[in-house]
Amino acid sequence: MNLPTKGEDIMRRLGIALVGVTLAAGLVAGSALAQTKEPIAKEPIALRDMGSFHIGGRVVEVTGQPIKEIVFTRGGVPAKMDPNGKYQVEQMYVQYFLPQSRKGRLPILLWHGGGLSGVTYETKPDGGDGWLSYFVRKGWDTYVSDAMERGRSGWTTSFGEPVVLPLGDPWERFRIGPAGSWNDDKAKRTTYPGAQFPVEAYEQFMKQGVPRWLTTDDPIMAGYLALVDKVCPCVVLVHSQSGAFGFKALESRPDKIKALVAIEPAAGGDRNKVASIKSTPVMIVYGDNAKDHPRWSKIRQGGVDYAGALKAAGGSIDVVDLPDAGIKGNSHMVMMDKNSDQVADLIQKWLAAKGLSD
Amino acid sequence: MNLPTKGEDIMRRLGIALVGVTLAAGLVAGSALAQTKEPIAKEPIALRDMGSFHIGGRVVEVTGQPIKEIVFTRGGVPAKMDPNGKYQVEQMYVQYFLPQSRKGRLPILLWHGGGLSGVTYETKPDGGDGWLSYFVRKGWDTYVSDAMERGRSGWTTSFGEPVVLPLGDPWERFRIGPAGSWNDDKAKRTTYPGAQFPVEAYEQFMKQGVPRWLTTDDPIMAGYLALVDKVCPCVVLVHSQSGAFGFKALESRPDKIKALVAIEPAAGGDRNKVASIKSTPVMIVYGDNAKDHPRWSKIRQGGVDYAGALKAAGGSIDVVDLPDAGIKGNSHMVMMDKNSDQVADLIQKWLAAKGLSD
Repeated sequence: MNLPTKGEDIMRRLGIALVGVTLAAGLVAGSALAQTKEPIAKEPIALRDMGSFHIGGRVVEVTGQPIKEIVFTRGGVPAKMDPNGKYQVEQMYVQYFLPQSRKGRLPILLWHGGGLSGVTYETKPDGGDGWLSYFVRKGWDTYVSDAMERGRSGWTTSFGEPVVLPLGDPWERFRIGPAGSWNDDKAKRTTYPGAQFPVEAYEQFMKQGVPRWLTTDDPIMAGYLALVDKVCPCVVLVHSQSGAFGFKALESRPDKIKALVAIEPAAGGDRNKVASIKSTPVMIVYGDNAKDHPRWSKIRQGGVDYAGALKAAGGSIDVVDLPDAGIKGNSHMVMMDKNSDQVADLIQKWLAAKGLSD
Repeated sequence: MNLPTKGEDIMRRLGIALVGVTLAAGLVAGSALAQTKEPIAKEPIALRDMGSFHIGGRVVEVTGQPIKEIVFTRGGVPAKMDPNGKYQVEQMYVQYFLPQSRKGRLPILLWHGGGLSGVTYETKPDGGDGWLSYFVRKGWDTYVSDAMERGRSGWTTSFGEPVVLPLGDPWERFRIGPAGSWNDDKAKRTTYPGAQFPVEAYEQFMKQGVPRWLTTDDPIMAGYLALVDKVCPCVVLVHSQSGAFGFKALESRPDKIKALVAIEPAAGGDRNKVASIKSTPVMIVYGDNAKDHPRWSKIRQGGVDYAGALKAAGGSIDVVDLPDAGIKGNSHMVMMDKNSDQVADLIQKWLAAKGLSD
């Protein structure tokens, strides 16, 4: 048994059966997979259906604007465009994959973090399988959405000026390396010891970024609630910015969200509403180096304090610091780290222990 | 045999074998499927893999901006954000589905039109299966991309002011109904006779819209060429705005694009370069009511004239006006029309006749 005793304790506390040798062997195999560059023959994915839809949003009206003449395509035929009229805004894009052999008892919804889109859960920047494939292969009906304003959801100029992160910013903000470890020169970048983020694919990760705004929480939330109302009861898995949306959704629809998994949530829920969500099990997961990071230590402490309040009200919440469970080196982008399957296994086992998966 | 003689002639000219009763029966079945609201038990989709990646783009530098303090999440911990530095821009998002039983000889790339994203080819606004599912089920390795600046590709404020279409604009521009047929009141909208667009799902279609720009053809093209260089030899299927990009891509990579299917292309290729692309078969498809529409008649005539020039240079090009092939009522959004499978069958048969599919 390779796991430290503390890790075993945490897993027992989480109600996860430890299958000694099997689990240890799984960790070794996962690590070997992450390191190899060779394509690996995969089990086929059998879907009973896949598809997408847009949900939510509203219609706004624009008046008093002049008619424009537009050449849409260079060398194309000019078109008159009257910008006045009604516009569809604030809808949300959702893509779903429904496995033929369903083992998750409910759909699982994967919500991404700030400045990103549902791509967060697809193929990892280093080309490995992400959590979308993981959960589909585990037999979950899996829904990946782009938050209102992000990606395929569209956006409108009425949101004002967006925020976009410069290339080096997430290197430290997302705890790949400590303060001062970023360098434009790849060879001069450093990381935390044993960092799991695939640093050679960092530029590839940054291609996933999309503009975001700081003024749009309410319509983002409206989109998520429309989704919950359409496809739940369900499990919701949130990351970073969407942590706040996940807890708000649970507070609004405690009967529809049957488990909430919050990966490094930017914020917890409302302490005045803990009693209302106590029948839903919640799991909060933090990666490595969160406790000592100047900003993440405060974010994590907020989550820990919130968990205490929820527990005191009779709620069911597990806070997992991955290093304490023997899983070291994870960045904020846990689902893209080299050992992402190992963390997903922990979540999958927690969900199974809650009776939500075979 | 239900098809009009003219349709049979066109199919023969295209080299498509007519399987009399079978084809006619297929049309009837397709029409029945499009009209029912009941979920239909589908054949499962077996994939040997699925995933996504971003490709292309470049790094630009911003200097001289003040450092900002930002609260990313309402109630969250403030963060300092230095907007100076390098930024990743102009990359393109691509998602792929690789069927277990491969019948298409090459990958097929589906490129969408202006103001839209790859969602164009996913589930149709009325909930029916789109062309992504169609081609995957027919055994094609299928790649759906969001053009640079659209959807999950991201965008930057340096592009300037985007264009967004008001709710009623595409009703007439995309030939669902003739001039004057749009009305904010659903009950007062009219269509061309026998229109195939699912008008009850028009608002749902408009949720798929995303902002676009009129100044970004070059980086869009660079993204498409990066994709062609990565995954081709291939078949490219383009629509509307991407018609221009498809012909440009073929002119730049005539050895890599082995067939080009252009659905209602906004523009054809460069008449000075027809000789260079004559070994690649090209199919141009127009829907109904294009010949008489004030703007589409010009666009179509441009395509027909270009086809004449390509043919005169020894090229292989088929121009199909769907109504002349017995397929009536199609709008500009052919892949969302109720009879989209019928049009896809025509394309599939053309590709098979060119030796590109079993």
